[in-house]
Amino acid sequence: MASALAASGEDSLIARYFRPLATDPGAFNLDDDAAVLKPSGDDIVVTTDAVVEGVHFLSGDPPETIARKALRVNLSDLAAKGATPSGFVLTLALRAVDDIWLKPFAEALGQDATHFRCPLLGGDTVSTPGPLMVSITAFGRVPSGGMTRRSGAAAGDRVFVSGTIGDATLGLQILTRGKVADAVARDLKGRDFLIERYRVPQPRLALADIVREHASAAMDVSDGLAGDLAKLCNVCGVSAAIDIPSIPLSAAADDLVSRQVVGVETLIAGGDDYEILCTVPERSAASFAQKARLAGVQVSCIGGVVAGSALPKFIDRDGAELALQQLSYSHF
Amino acid sequence: MASALAASGEDSLIARYFRPLATDPGAFNLDDDAAVLKPSGDDIVVTTDAVVEGVHFLSGDPPETIARKALRVNLSDLAAKGATPSGFVLTLALRAVDDIWLKPFAEALGQDATHFRCPLLGGDTVSTPGPLMVSITAFGRVPSGGMTRRSGAAAGDRVFVSGTIGDATLGLQILTRGKVADAVARDLKGRDFLIERYRVPQPRLALADIVREHASAAMDVSDGLAGDLAKLCNVCGVSAAIDIPSIPLSAAADDLVSRQVVGVETLIAGGDDYEILCTVPERSAASFAQKARLAGVQVSCIGGVVAGSALPKFIDRDGAELALQQLSYSHF
Repeated sequence: MASALAASGEDSLIARYFRPLATDPGAFNLDDDAAVLKPSGDDIVVTTDAVVEGVHFLSGDPPETIARKALRVNLSDLAAKGATPSGFVLTLALRAVDDIWLKPFAEALGQDATHFRCPLLGGDTVSTPGPLMVSITAFGRVPSGGMTRRSGAAAGDRVFVSGTIGDATLGLQILTRGKVADAVARDLKGRDFLIERYRVPQPRLALADIVREHASAAMDVSDGLAGDLAKLCNVCGVSAAIDIPSIPLSAAADDLVSRQVVGVETLIAGGDDYEILCTVPERSAASFAQKARLAGVQVSCIGGVVAGSALPKFIDRDGAELALQQLSYSHF
Repeated sequence: MASALAASGEDSLIARYFRPLATDPGAFNLDDDAAVLKPSGDDIVVTTDAVVEGVHFLSGDPPETIARKALRVNLSDLAAKGATPSGFVLTLALRAVDDIWLKPFAEALGQDATHFRCPLLGGDTVSTPGPLMVSITAFGRVPSGGMTRRSGAAAGDRVFVSGTIGDATLGLQILTRGKVADAVARDLKGRDFLIERYRVPQPRLALADIVREHASAAMDVSDGLAGDLAKLCNVCGVSAAIDIPSIPLSAAADDLVSRQVVGVETLIAGGDDYEILCTVPERSAASFAQKARLAGVQVSCIGGVVAGSALPKFIDRDGAELALQQLSYSHF
């Protein structure tokens, strides 16, 4: 009997591409059916997010960026919860084993796993007749009881976001060739920047401890600032007043708004930012902003939490409230 | 602004169908971006398995059985690792929100979660243009360092399996209307039994502690007994000799073999058994079998571990080795 019979295609692809990523002793070299997370006294924070071809990334996206996005959307959740990454498990649904695709996918995933100190612990590789899907469950650690919740914001707290808002949705619009694509046709640098923001989120792990120590509530902005802020306020039983000119925009996004190619509502209702949205009590706001700056991450105060159960208001330069047709991306 | 804008379709379906399943305090009522596993001094065992429409279940399968199978294939892994379930996270990729489908799916998942004491901790619901997919990461607990590994079998150990082998692959063949379907056309009881074995695995959690206390190595049989035993032996650096007449068959499977509708090789190379395969040192074999009986789970000794690196041999009643064309199901 040929010994090749012993190793199925699935086992062989796991050995070839993913074993090198399983550097944690609890991964048992991917030779077992399960992994082990050792107790440390810390709480283990668990988050799970999937990316689907044609929904979260485009068919033509490079395997490297698909891998990075799949992991980073989960790391972004950990950062918003104040957690330090400790590992992840991966479910990969593939139409076929394509080495040309798998090799750069696994290499990029491994680079990110190393960079963010979040090793692969285990996984499942399945065939699908449908779109490629990468589902990741990631683990992080926080001191017992210390996870930053989505609830906890109180009237008077300041509202902060990290990074810049709206770049990713512009990047997606460029890739899907709408009017934004035409508008940046001659600005290759801006074009590439916006596409990269869509394809490769930057999980704000450098903020994790600072968020945990300062924020009253936090989440990551994944479906759109307006909708995600509404969710946070809803859980907290509060509302918010946001000052539109304070919303941080990249130079590329600002240019498109100035030229009236897109309105600001496109940016605040668009998805895929993967920035941290948090509320900070007024007395801690200066310390929060200072520590974030020292950690090298831009944070911007965009408004305040107010009492009430109304949807958050977005106020423009003239004091008028922006009417939003849509708050965020919804899958259904 | 209509307040309906605040709740996206995704949030509303999570609230309606899945919040009732999130009974663990660490699930935060599904109101947060992450869940928390509290430290207990035990190791946390992590396993992840996905089921895909058209691959692990059929398009026409009832939502109830899809839900149960998705959770149970993971619980089966926990049982084989000697772990007690403590919770799971769910990724559900859906083409659309179909209440007629989601209601029974969530209810059955909730029933199993309650029955197996494995509450929903969190999840992600995404849209897909492709097949339905349910990816679950499940958590269990074992005393520190106590997880039963896939490695550890030594020459002389006895090889055991729980339950009966080959029913599920026959059930699949009935559903896909091959010769097995014709052969059971008049045996409705046998037909229903085999289909149920395909659709609703029985995770052998009653064996978890007994496996952990007795087995030198264990895994669950998910891709086929022959292939999974080969994997186990390969990790352990041993081989095995299996006595075919000792392989436990259900009455329905035995009938089909006796009537020569299928050969035994179909049963031992077919997938979806979700039974426990383990090796037990000879001195503990009697105790293992007795305790399993007391726990109400049938276990059968089907052979022994032998030295060497050859593929496991399957020996028939006449002492001849069965030639296997295929060891197990492979996705690729």
